[in-house]
Amino acid sequence: MAKATVTFTGGMQFVATADSGHAVVMDAGPDAGGSNSGSRPMELLLMGIGGCSGMDIISILRKKKQQVTGLEAQVNGIMADSYPHKYTEITIEYVVRGKGVSEEAVKRAVQLSMDKYCSVKATLDGSARINFAYRIIEE
Amino acid sequence: MAKATVTFTGGMQFVATADSGHAVVMDAGPDAGGSNSGSRPMELLLMGIGGCSGMDIISILRKKKQQVTGLEAQVNGIMADSYPHKYTEITIEYVVRGKGVSEEAVKRAVQLSMDKYCSVKATLDGSARINFAYRIIEE
Repeated sequence: MAKATVTFTGGMQFVATADSGHAVVMDAGPDAGGSNSGSRPMELLLMGIGGCSGMDIISILRKKKQQVTGLEAQVNGIMADSYPHKYTEITIEYVVRGKGVSEEAVKRAVQLSMDKYCSVKATLDGSARINFAYRIIEE
Repeated sequence: MAKATVTFTGGMQFVATADSGHAVVMDAGPDAGGSNSGSRPMELLLMGIGGCSGMDIISILRKKKQQVTGLEAQVNGIMADSYPHKYTEITIEYVVRGKGVSEEAVKRAVQLSMDKYCSVKATLDGSARINFAYRIIEE
């Protein structure tokens, strides 16, 4: 069981903490009565899928003894035009940097995260179509 | 189109930024090779649903001229036992504090957020069962 407490702190700002103890500030933008003092709640879903799968990929590439020097997940979400504007499609591009990193290893790491390990991906998958791709940059 | 960039920053730590410009740090716990320097990615989903619906509820109660002095969303997530440990059930209890706040107004605000407005709820809904309840505390 995971637990988060999300507390209203004035305006449209909320501060959330969860089991790990770290706080995240959320706020609406001025267009929705907020003052942009923190992330939009919907942004957290894109951040979460990037972080969750990123951790899997780093961990798998380490086990495969790959010399990774950088990893970035560029996550794009498309929302439905009408309320409640849910994500209908999320696309992630992983940019892996390193020295002689094997394409096969990256392909396998990304695939394992998407198919087997990433809890955020598995949760969002029921609702949004998840697309992914990767690029490797030799450093 | 919403966009987030999630960058590996060493260990198992990732820093995410999205369109609004705010950064969120994510990390795994020591049990998973991290050093708990930030939120777990799965925590962000619970934070997001609490913040998203909390903003709706505050906004609707303001329109209904209710004197709300506090709002807290307590969010619990149950994950599947087996990989990829997705959320199967999420329960949110809203605790509304105020002076003479109408129960009917709170009930309606929560219902409108859950059924019509909350984008995070609508996204997670495809995958996890979402339960909700509310309590009102007179101040």
